[in-house]
Formats: sequence, structure tokens, C-alpha cells
Amino acid sequence: MVRFFVEPEALLGDTLTLTGENAQHAKVLRLKQGEEVLVCDGQEQECLCAVQSTGSGQLVLDVKERREPASEASVKVSVYMAFPKADKLEHVIQKATELGAFEIIAFPSARCISRPDDKSLKKKLERWQKIALSAAGQSGRGRIPQVLTLSSYQEALHRAATADKALLFYENEQAVTLKMALSSGGYQTVSLLTGPEGGLEETEVVQAREAGLQVCTLGKRILRCETAPLCALSAVMYDAGEF
Amino acid sequence: MVRFFVEPEALLGDTLTLTGENAQHAKVLRLKQGEEVLVCDGQEQECLCAVQSTGSGQLVLDVKERREPASEASVKVSVYMAFPKADKLEHVIQKATELGAFEIIAFPSARCISRPDDKSLKKKLERWQKIALSAAGQSGRGRIPQVLTLSSYQEALHRAATADKALLFYENEQAVTLKMALSSGGYQTVSLLTGPEGGLEETEVVQAREAGLQVCTLGKRILRCETAPLCALSAVMYDAGEF
Repeated sequence: MVRFFVEPEALLGDTLTLTGENAQHAKVLRLKQGEEVLVCDGQEQECLCAVQSTGSGQLVLDVKERREPASEASVKVSVYMAFPKADKLEHVIQKATELGAFEIIAFPSARCISRPDDKSLKKKLERWQKIALSAAGQSGRGRIPQVLTLSSYQEALHRAATADKALLFYENEQAVTLKMALSSGGYQTVSLLTGPEGGLEETEVVQAREAGLQVCTLGKRILRCETAPLCALSAVMYDAGEF
Repeated sequence: MVRFFVEPEALLGDTLTLTGENAQHAKVLRLKQGEEVLVCDGQEQECLCAVQSTGSGQLVLDVKERREPASEASVKVSVYMAFPKADKLEHVIQKATELGAFEIIAFPSARCISRPDDKSLKKKLERWQKIALSAAGQSGRGRIPQVLTLSSYQEALHRAATADKALLFYENEQAVTLKMALSSGGYQTVSLLTGPEGGLEETEVVQAREAGLQVCTLGKRILRCETAPLCALSAVMYDAGEF
């Protein structure tokens, strides 16, 4: 089913009027009267609607049902990723959105080569949020994960530590597997923290333990910095019974 | 540790002599006498060696220990992917190699837009195998997954069906999850089959069931054709106790 994202205010009332890009998209799709579409606020709500009329740069819809987004995961997973080089963060945002991440948070760490300044960050955040929106639409999600950046590693640790399961993946950890870390079950929120290309420094791993994160391994093979968060996210979704 | 890949014949004897690209790479790395390196045949064996001498376009090594590749997964997972467009197969080969796939097999299906002809396939296979080699080296694997292509969907089904768990992922399947399909445990070989951009046709899914594959879902969100195999592979490796 076609899915449109609008601001939450635009979901009020029994009739919705979509304009701008959404109306253009509707025109391209040649939607017909009576056809069903979904209109989502990208957060808490989605409306199942029927097309009332199209044309004149607007799409008018009758609301048939209001509901919580039906394709959201039961577990809220926050993906914390140290700023990688080039377009790897974009790749992770797109894939993590498809895989059902609740939010994606980028932060600096000691070995980060890429550290966007405040000026470029604003533009980048807009771009990143658009990637999340597009991936949410394509994968049939009613919720768009928020993309955030934090200004320090310490801030990332303290924010991540508030989850039921707060996990950091480190290539030199051998004893504790992700499976062990999740074995107690009953978690509703999970933080997954991974390092940049050069990995995390040992002192950073110590700081993470002190902040309350559990340090785990993702196995015997060294994963690239853009592969590790997606591998961990897939496994957590599997463990949580999503598929 | 630095890792070199050589032909199996080059692993015979107590002293190994590496030439060509490997010797050039050793020069760039400025390897010193006594330093330990790994030499792998990319299949069954790896040799832990100490540098005896460098220079004159060759690297001479003393073999200290012969062993099976230490970082291979206990479960052999074959990734069957319908030919996707553009460079998506390259992406899957790189990531699936990191994630520990045993082999990657591309095949045509009804909705494949990309169907390389025999002429271009030979060149492409060489390129794909190089990507697997490079990813194996970077992720610390001693085995290079083989990249194969098959000429028909039927051939893919029959080859895939020989595994202990032969699974096909279909977005319209809702009842059987991957977790259910793996719940009996005790598997040593797994086939994961996924469709192209436009998905598999319903008749193809019926054919797969007839060939003995189990049809499963990867959850409520629609995954892109390059995301699905990597998500499934991560989950299988997790289930099998790899991390």
C-alpha cells in the first residue's frame, strides 16, 4: 500500500488534504478514487484512508481507521555509531531503518577520522533524516527513526546506558557473546554501540564498562565498522522474536 | 596478524617463498625478520609462519604451525541470491564474506532485471572472487568463500535443498519465522535463498516448496534485496552460537 508521511497536525480531522511533494507523488502514482493509502505522522500514528479526490495539486482523503504503526518492532533498538568516513553512515541509516531501528545516534570517538563541524552537521542531519524517511517508506514502516548526533563519547555512553540492555561491541572481547548478554530476556530497549574504522581504544572500552555498558563480541571475524551495527541489530531483532 | 593467500601447492614444505603481489604487499608492510604472519590456501589450511628474509621481490617464511583456519564458522551457510541490479551483488559478497558465509551463489529468477550473459559473466566472476578474497583477508578469515553462478532457478532450488536447513525468504509469508525454521537445532549446513528487487513470483515460491525448501518471513518490514540475505545470515550465525 502507498504510504505518505505528513506532519502530526495534518492527521487531525476526518478528511485529510495532502499537498506539495505528497500530492505530486500521488499524481505520478495515478491514484484512483476509493483506493486505499496509508498516511503516517512518522511517529505514533498512521491513518488508513480512501482517496476522495485528486487533482489541482492536492489529494483529498477520507480517514477510515487510525492506528499505531503496524510494522514497528516490539523492541526499541538504538544504534550508536562512532562517526565513520565518507558515506558509511548513510548506508547504516538506510539499512538500520529497514531493519527496524528505533533511532540512530552518531558520536565522536578517539579514532574517528571524520568529525563533522557544527556548520556542516546541520545540512548533514537534514540529509540523514531524509534517508531515514525514504527507507521507512520503502520498508513499510509507519515510524521514521530519528537520526541524532552527540558531541562527545561520554554523552553517548551515558545516553546508551539508560537502555535495558546497553551493549558495546569490541573486537578484543572474547568471553561474552551477544547471546549471553541477551540471555536473560525481558528487554524492551536496547543500545548497540560500535566504534569507527580504527576501532575503539582500550581506555574507551574501560569507560564504557564504568558507565554501565556490557562489552560483547560479534564473533571471530573482524567486521567493518558499517557491518557491525547491522549484524548486531539483525541478531537482536531475531532474538526479540521479530522474525 | 598479516594474512597472505596463496595457491594450495605453495603451502607445501617447511619454508614458503611468496612472490608477486604478496611480496610487494610484504614490502609495503616493512615486515621484519622473525615477525609472525599467516599464509592461507583460502580453503582448508593456514600456516603460522615467521619471516626468514625479505627483499629481491620475494618473502621467505619458516612454517611454525599448520592448522585449520581458526576463524571459520562452525555452520556452513550458503547464500543464494537472485541476480540484483548494479553493484548490489558486490556489496552482498563483501558483507556475506565478513559475516562468515561459506559460499555465495547467484542465480536468475523471473523478475531479475540483470542477467549477465556468459561472456560478461566470466569477467564478473573474477571480479566477485577478488572481492571475496579481499573481504576474507580484511575480516581475518582463512577461507575464501567461493562465488558461483547457476544458470536457472530450478538449479538453485535443487542445490539449495541439499542443506540441513534450506530456507527461502518471502515477504508474503507470515506464519513461519526464521526462528521457527531453525528451532529444531542440530544443523550444520544452511541455504538462504532470497529474491531480486521485484521479489519472487508466487509460482516460484510454490516450486521452492516442492523442491523441499522451507518458506519463512524476515519480519513485518520489507527488506531491500541486498539487505535480506545479510540480515538472515547474521541471524543464522547468531542462532548457531557464533556470537
